[in-house]
Amino acid sequence: MSEHEIDVHLGRYVPLAKAMGIRLRYHNATGLALAAPLTPNTNDKGTAFAGALASIATLSGWALTYMALREHREEAILVITDSAIHYLRPVQEEIVAVCAVPGSEALERFVSSYRKHGKARWELEAAISADGETAVKFRGRYAASRPS
Amino acid sequence: MSEHEIDVHLGRYVPLAKAMGIRLRYHNATGLALAAPLTPNTNDKGTAFAGALASIATLSGWALTYMALREHREEAILVITDSAIHYLRPVQEEIVAVCAVPGSEALERFVSSYRKHGKARWELEAAISADGETAVKFRGRYAASRPS
Repeated sequence: MSEHEIDVHLGRYVPLAKAMGIRLRYHNATGLALAAPLTPNTNDKGTAFAGALASIATLSGWALTYMALREHREEAILVITDSAIHYLRPVQEEIVAVCAVPGSEALERFVSSYRKHGKARWELEAAISADGETAVKFRGRYAASRPS
Repeated sequence: MSEHEIDVHLGRYVPLAKAMGIRLRYHNATGLALAAPLTPNTNDKGTAFAGALASIATLSGWALTYMALREHREEAILVITDSAIHYLRPVQEEIVAVCAVPGSEALERFVSSYRKHGKARWELEAAISADGETAVKFRGRYAASRPS
């Protein structure tokens, strides 16, 4: 079994993702999930550190965008321009950030805008659960631009 | 010279802050700054990873809140309830997050609310500069509650 491209990319280029132990959990037509163990990501209360939750949520949106373009044989420079996060309850288990595909129409629009203009933006939502309930709600805007 | 309380606390309880190399840069009447080297905090573009920027900004507000209560001889359980962040330009140098005291009136209100009700909330702003210009704008709401 070969390592997934997302894991290779994060392991090679994002030392903090490595320190957090982030790995792709799944990627399918509905979305993408990244997972990280709790231990390297705790705070002074023994629950997940807010910064770790923000980091994995941010990366889940990046990874979804990366894979969406990749599946359309496109590559882009990706950045996050802004995000908002709500911490609803503590996370005291493995951290799993799920980023949903915002519908096939939004996906088509994003890819065709990128192909036409060499740039595109979209807004993604991600969530982290704890004990079966939503613990973190994340919303981020990602921009893709053609490498020069 | 003894290590500052903030550095001891982060080094002891927040493994990710240690992995990022976060240290207190200064703390005075106007605010507080945390600093981290770029190297452990890069992304695939060789600039600062958004999650690292969010993490250090989040911690700067936590540290300011911690010290504000500490100076009034109070201790509390501190959590961040929500935040918003804007990434305006890439950061390709030492990361320094500056969190400003939101005025002496807000400070007094926060501390007296905590003393009276055993809980208090406030909103803080932090910024990270790059090349002399604002690169990251952060706003976070922090809640303090009395340990039971």
